[in-house]
Amino acid sequence: MRFNSKIKTIQWIDNYSRIIDQTIIPYEFKYLDITSGDEMVNAIKTMIVRGAPAIGIAGAHAIVLYAQELEKTYTDLNEFAQELIKKADYVNEARPTAVNLMWAVKKQKEVINNGVNNNLSIHELINNLKENGIKLENEDVEINKKIGDYGAEIVPKGATILTHCNAGALATVGYGTALGVVRSAYANDNTIQVFADETRPRQQGARLTTFELVTDGIPVTLITDGMCSYFMKQGKIDLVITGADRIAANGDSANKIGTYTVAIAAKYHNVPFYIAAPLSTIDTSIKTGDEIVIEERSHEEVTHINGKNICIDGVNIINPGFDVTPHELIAGIITEKGILRPDYKTSIAEAFA
Amino acid sequence: MRFNSKIKTIQWIDNYSRIIDQTIIPYEFKYLDITSGDEMVNAIKTMIVRGAPAIGIAGAHAIVLYAQELEKTYTDLNEFAQELIKKADYVNEARPTAVNLMWAVKKQKEVINNGVNNNLSIHELINNLKENGIKLENEDVEINKKIGDYGAEIVPKGATILTHCNAGALATVGYGTALGVVRSAYANDNTIQVFADETRPRQQGARLTTFELVTDGIPVTLITDGMCSYFMKQGKIDLVITGADRIAANGDSANKIGTYTVAIAAKYHNVPFYIAAPLSTIDTSIKTGDEIVIEERSHEEVTHINGKNICIDGVNIINPGFDVTPHELIAGIITEKGILRPDYKTSIAEAFA
Repeated sequence: MRFNSKIKTIQWIDNYSRIIDQTIIPYEFKYLDITSGDEMVNAIKTMIVRGAPAIGIAGAHAIVLYAQELEKTYTDLNEFAQELIKKADYVNEARPTAVNLMWAVKKQKEVINNGVNNNLSIHELINNLKENGIKLENEDVEINKKIGDYGAEIVPKGATILTHCNAGALATVGYGTALGVVRSAYANDNTIQVFADETRPRQQGARLTTFELVTDGIPVTLITDGMCSYFMKQGKIDLVITGADRIAANGDSANKIGTYTVAIAAKYHNVPFYIAAPLSTIDTSIKTGDEIVIEERSHEEVTHINGKNICIDGVNIINPGFDVTPHELIAGIITEKGILRPDYKTSIAEAFA
Repeated sequence: MRFNSKIKTIQWIDNYSRIIDQTIIPYEFKYLDITSGDEMVNAIKTMIVRGAPAIGIAGAHAIVLYAQELEKTYTDLNEFAQELIKKADYVNEARPTAVNLMWAVKKQKEVINNGVNNNLSIHELINNLKENGIKLENEDVEINKKIGDYGAEIVPKGATILTHCNAGALATVGYGTALGVVRSAYANDNTIQVFADETRPRQQGARLTTFELVTDGIPVTLITDGMCSYFMKQGKIDLVITGADRIAANGDSANKIGTYTVAIAAKYHNVPFYIAAPLSTIDTSIKTGDEIVIEERSHEEVTHINGKNICIDGVNIINPGFDVTPHELIAGIITEKGILRPDYKTSIAEAFA
């Protein structure tokens, strides 16, 4: 059974992309109509749209938007395509850690190259990019629903699921990965509940995860990031499920900073720790998590909350946006092709075969 | 060598107690002159004064303040003492987890009982309570300096010390326990540095620890609570030192919520985890940490920061103020009688012998 979520994070409409502005939740719930490529790249960089699968789709849309702009200047297909590839490379660099962005950009580049090889008109090429963007968008929801259904099988009756950051409808086109599992499990058993880590510095757990679960009527308890072990020791957490931004060929998984700490706490208490992510999050080109670039974000994310400083001046700050949870801490990776289990080298290779 | 800290958190002056208002740091640095017992109990409850050793002294001062008030009403020593004991019991209940409060109240009750047994005048009894309060105050600084000196011996040259919450000058009369070790170590080796956990929900790390270290010129890096494992994995943390609010006879240590998570992460990375605390924090009347009452604090501490909500309404909250780190995760307990090592049952019993 599937849950009917009310949230649609990103969608292509005619010739623009409509996204939910995630920087103002929970204070306001507002859609933004993004009409230019630069606007979309900025939205990705400033986390107006965030979450690995969602920024993949946002990247695909950005390329369509750039194509529409370039159409006004270029009449030659090859020149147009050359300029658009440059724009695609620029989109690719908007955020470094989540591989879904690179994956979606690569998919759009294939459309561009096919268009050139088949000598399409610029107009036809743009239509193909649009269609491909919409296809990726629809596939994302379908993939999430499959992830949800596979994942629901490992959620015990009446379970409490701890999650970190937001791997929900707001991190995807809709439904969610980790929260997709929650939604599918809840549709079968409305006695399950969620514990959401606040997820400092940007508080995606407090701001976004609780927002979408309350909106969908699923019980959620907000805890601060340091509390996870306290509740695990009390036996209140049955399993942990988080999303991922990039997964190496051996299963090492980059996700929002703090995930690794939760995974260690889960191991210490024998609580199973799962990743829920589409195959597009798996980067088989890298062997281990050591090769994943960790984005360093602005110091203000740590020193300020809601625009107000929380510490004195003169304090040093380091703000890694992500950390890598080593494969040995992960009980399973829930994908649209089923739950991958250790050893991940083998199970990941099989999923891609 | 000892560091000369500028901070004096609580001091008795003539007939009142002067405390630093810790709820407005880092925005303002202001002393409050507390002239009544109720005011002091309120200051303890609302964490205007906080930190296990500091609230012990605050409790001792509260009893002197109540005594000065009762002197206006009572002329009979026994009646006076009876009423004052009631007030002392009330002070005792201001906060449940930190045992130093109970310890200091007990010390003042001994003075009251001695006064009654020796048939002192009410005036003489109050003078004795004042003198005892000042004695406890001075002893606290001396004890912290001894803790600092013993602890400095286990800080490697150029070390980075991670701490959680604030066990500094602001948590004591001055100098600090965990940060006392930092101060003594820094006096010998100014290449050491501190990483301070933010310590949600009340952010004592961000607000207080960074404040007092920047004030004293000791390098400090603020990190969010989830980041500790990331930096441990990178080899950036050489040891962890935190304070404690109550330590059981077997070494299990209650401290600010989140400490237990840090201790688990430290164990996973083979980083030694130390507690720094005076013997008055050790409650030999309880065998294990299971007997420690964990204070449940207001939900607003989790849902609001600087008066503004960070999540939607309709979210469940549980807000335990403390957690218990089991003795097996603790490399040593740094006290004024030296560093206690496992097995703690034996080393604690010896320290009290």
